Amino acid sequence: MAQSSTQLLDGRDLSPWQTIARRKRFDREVNLNQYPQWRLRSKVPADRRDVSKVLDDELSSEESEIVRFDATEIVTLVKERRFTSLQVIQAHCHAAVVAQDLTNCLSEVFFDEAVQRAKELDDHLQRTGETYGPLHGVPVSVKDHIMVKGKDTSTGYAAWCYKTVAEKDAVAVDILRKAGAILYVKTNNPQTLLSLETNNNIFGRTSNPYDRDRTAGGSSGGESALIAFHGSPLGLGTDIGGSIRLPAGCTGLYGFKASVARIPHKGLLGSHDGMDAIIGVLGPITRSARDLSLFCRVMLLYEPWLVEPPLLEIPWKQDVVDGAGLPSRLCFAILWDDGVFPPEPAINEALAECKSVLTGKGHVVIDWEPIGHKEAWDLLTKLYFLDGGEEYWDVLNESGEPPVPQTEWILNQAPNGGKPFTVAEIFRLNLQREAFRQKLLEHWNNTASRTGLNRAVDAIITPVAPTLAPKHGKTEWWGYTSYWNLADYPAAVFPVGYAGQFLDKVEKDGESGQQSTTRDDLYDNLPVCLQLVGRRLNEERLLGILNVVDGELSQDAQTRRL
Amino acid sequence: MAQSSTQLLDGRDLSPWQTIARRKRFDREVNLNQYPQWRLRSKVPADRRDVSKVLDDELSSEESEIVRFDATEIVTLVKERRFTSLQVIQAHCHAAVVAQDLTNCLSEVFFDEAVQRAKELDDHLQRTGETYGPLHGVPVSVKDHIMVKGKDTSTGYAAWCYKTVAEKDAVAVDILRKAGAILYVKTNNPQTLLSLETNNNIFGRTSNPYDRDRTAGGSSGGESALIAFHGSPLGLGTDIGGSIRLPAGCTGLYGFKASVARIPHKGLLGSHDGMDAIIGVLGPITRSARDLSLFCRVMLLYEPWLVEPPLLEIPWKQDVVDGAGLPSRLCFAILWDDGVFPPEPAINEALAECKSVLTGKGHVVIDWEPIGHKEAWDLLTKLYFLDGGEEYWDVLNESGEPPVPQTEWILNQAPNGGKPFTVAEIFRLNLQREAFRQKLLEHWNNTASRTGLNRAVDAIITPVAPTLAPKHGKTEWWGYTSYWNLADYPAAVFPVGYAGQFLDKVEKDGESGQQSTTRDDLYDNLPVCLQLVGRRLNEERLLGILNVVDGELSQDAQTRRL
Repeated sequence: MAQSSTQLLDGRDLSPWQTIARRKRFDREVNLNQYPQWRLRSKVPADRRDVSKVLDDELSSEESEIVRFDATEIVTLVKERRFTSLQVIQAHCHAAVVAQDLTNCLSEVFFDEAVQRAKELDDHLQRTGETYGPLHGVPVSVKDHIMVKGKDTSTGYAAWCYKTVAEKDAVAVDILRKAGAILYVKTNNPQTLLSLETNNNIFGRTSNPYDRDRTAGGSSGGESALIAFHGSPLGLGTDIGGSIRLPAGCTGLYGFKASVARIPHKGLLGSHDGMDAIIGVLGPITRSARDLSLFCRVMLLYEPWLVEPPLLEIPWKQDVVDGAGLPSRLCFAILWDDGVFPPEPAINEALAECKSVLTGKGHVVIDWEPIGHKEAWDLLTKLYFLDGGEEYWDVLNESGEPPVPQTEWILNQAPNGGKPFTVAEIFRLNLQREAFRQKLLEHWNNTASRTGLNRAVDAIITPVAPTLAPKHGKTEWWGYTSYWNLADYPAAVFPVGYAGQFLDKVEKDGESGQQSTTRDDLYDNLPVCLQLVGRRLNEERLLGILNVVDGELSQDAQTRRL
Repeated sequence: MAQSSTQLLDGRDLSPWQTIARRKRFDREVNLNQYPQWRLRSKVPADRRDVSKVLDDELSSEESEIVRFDATEIVTLVKERRFTSLQVIQAHCHAAVVAQDLTNCLSEVFFDEAVQRAKELDDHLQRTGETYGPLHGVPVSVKDHIMVKGKDTSTGYAAWCYKTVAEKDAVAVDILRKAGAILYVKTNNPQTLLSLETNNNIFGRTSNPYDRDRTAGGSSGGESALIAFHGSPLGLGTDIGGSIRLPAGCTGLYGFKASVARIPHKGLLGSHDGMDAIIGVLGPITRSARDLSLFCRVMLLYEPWLVEPPLLEIPWKQDVVDGAGLPSRLCFAILWDDGVFPPEPAINEALAECKSVLTGKGHVVIDWEPIGHKEAWDLLTKLYFLDGGEEYWDVLNESGEPPVPQTEWILNQAPNGGKPFTVAEIFRLNLQREAFRQKLLEHWNNTASRTGLNRAVDAIITPVAPTLAPKHGKTEWWGYTSYWNLADYPAAVFPVGYAGQFLDKVEKDGESGQQSTTRDDLYDNLPVCLQLVGRRLNEERLLGILNVVDGELSQDAQTRRL
């Protein structure tokens, strides 16, 4: 809900970082107030937790229709002149403002530019009869720490506010523009970025539209809240331990983390530049499986390796996504429990149902034997904090802002008493990482002896986290996602239903003994996602398999609904 | 020449490392003495410098014919049963022993196993009518630090002798065996491997068959001496600063360093495990351009990424090597001088002739503007020695052996007073490396404005080093090769002629004023090589371009000879 400007600026005796943060929020508010027609009109009490259904009361029926399309559909509809780019961006701006008013998901807002760009695109289509590019007219939201020319890149740090106005676009953003996408908002990310929730001292925390007492996940939690709320069809996130996948998982979306160096990654601000023992990945959060590959295909269409040296020159193989070379009978392994944090019943049951559907369709499903999950996390915390967390503390100390609770928690995970490792120690840690990858690869290869198909499994199905979206501040275990960053395997998150449908099943089966969660309507409506993991650099194949899984599951759901 | 066993073992008052080294040489000698029929029979005075022509006096005419074939030809001839694998390996064993007796190029010798394997392969072909694999019957020599099961991997360190018997094959070696290649020798490499000459306290130094006062290069100098002497058609080397290319350049051979992570690299011993700021590459040294791609093609045929996690799953595109997608009019840039060490006249003239031939054939040749070559070297020495050289000194101190002069020289290049860098400094160095790569990529892209073809250059032609094969101990500048390791661009070395032919040209043109080398017959017979550099991960394209360049140059040479 709109706050008045004076309300925001009446603070006295504020410390410098508080003043900066207050000013930043004030600026955002002023900006949003330029569009009073889009601000939340319904009376939504502050303690109303599920706001996921508010949107339809706010939007016109045409806007409501538009914001339900995925990016692929938008491209088609605009190309076929069923909607103009202007209609599309305005509907999304409207939904984004409502999303902001209910979940606090935005950091930077630039609707005027977006509207201007939409008009140009419409003119172009009108004039030439051709779309400007493969994302002509698609609104795309961008996580705060990804640079957008002329916009601030405060990245959750008070110290960086107003000092990090980007001089140029990140490579991915540049490609989006060339492809005809429309940029209109940047989204909130947590202090330090190293958090699976989204909270910082500037904008505060972002909430989950399905239950505002819960997190939308992090670090790309501004994106997930916005996209789940239909304020964006396609968002750019980043992931070094689950930061795309966990937010997608918390909000029932699709998210994709490719292997390192396939998707453009240049032009991001963060605290760990030059640390290359473990590297993050930029990727999409969407509301459809096909939009994940649409994003990747467009990124590689522009040969980004010609401007970003670390990128691998491996052109996108859309035919593989579309099924080329994929056996009709696929083989999956399910990771039921990583041996560190067992998943809660709704997730167990979602895995079981997934298995049942896939085997029913003739696919082979075996168990994945967990291997070294605790050890992987111990190693990861060392690789994240080779410098003992010094870079993070330096930026916090620069403005004097305190760590938010999740920052404090993760910085306390820094091993070695917070002291930097020596060069010799770093060499040994790198070797441990390589040994982990070696062991895991052999483990995967060895499944060939158990599939009965004379080949190893095609993909692994795992929980995204041990729990559904946690209450704010309660995220405890990154292992189900971060493990695949250490492995550098591509991993996609996809929705499979809502907690209630799986818990009903558990109770009907008389397994309620293991029921650990207090059920209520709010809980029952929480989305449940699973994660599909593929072999390194097999992005296309993984997304091809995702299409199959996603298809089989929805077909099954439709059949049963009939 | 054969030394008597007692001669080798009569040392008294030897320090422990000297005893080990003496024993190692003794073992090699005993081993070679099992094949008296292959040892050098001619009387070659110790001070005879050019021994490149001795071979024909030693080998039978059939052997002489066999050892002139390249690997591709051997595959064909054995398949067509023109020669047996046994004939092929025996001829190469013979030539290898003579090479050893004249240039000291071998470390480990295992001819019995090789002969046994050749017989098995011949049996297989006889029995099945099929070759065992794509390298059926090809003798392949292996640089000492690459693991061959059951063989010592002393790697130029006295401390490692007898303690590093490999329990399994390196991935590349394993593939060679599966492909039907025959292993028979390992070859000498320098102490620490970090040297562009080949000398150590165990076996001593390896000499250049064209002038034994000169180095065969390093660190794969055992390979280059052996292959130039026709003791092997195909050798495995490794390159982190020029260690494949410089030896090939010193001896008139072909050598290829791919981008990091395309060619199997697992199963090597060395002092810098876990250091991944700059990574070495395994690759071939050969006597033909087509053998370079034969090697790469075979390596990737076996999907090594399924056993070696860091490898990129990019299957080999032989059609690109064979010209698919290559414009008929190519565009080259020539790096005449890197601004640090100007090349000597024979090399200048070789570049000029190369330009003249290529432009004569309709290709475009522009100048490459040198960019940051001194800075690149300064950064490289930091990346090589993140630990201040500690790992190297540790192994030397383990046995008490002193550094040989080239080791001493390079360890003295260790920056930071030989102290390890801090984590924060390492992060900054990584960023400097990335900034270098960014600048270089843009520099390459920017050539598009000068080619007149509306595209950037296809490849760069550069010297391999500022000099032809240096006198032992005189190698001073790695920059012409190491620069491309820092860039991580693929680079191939190829022979273009002999010093004399180019110097004749210089003198005829009246440019002898810049003549800095004392010419004599020995110098005139030194091979001259150039280097061809491609874009990162464009291995196939680079080797396709090499085929064109190599073809145009030899066609031109033949035309003029007529």
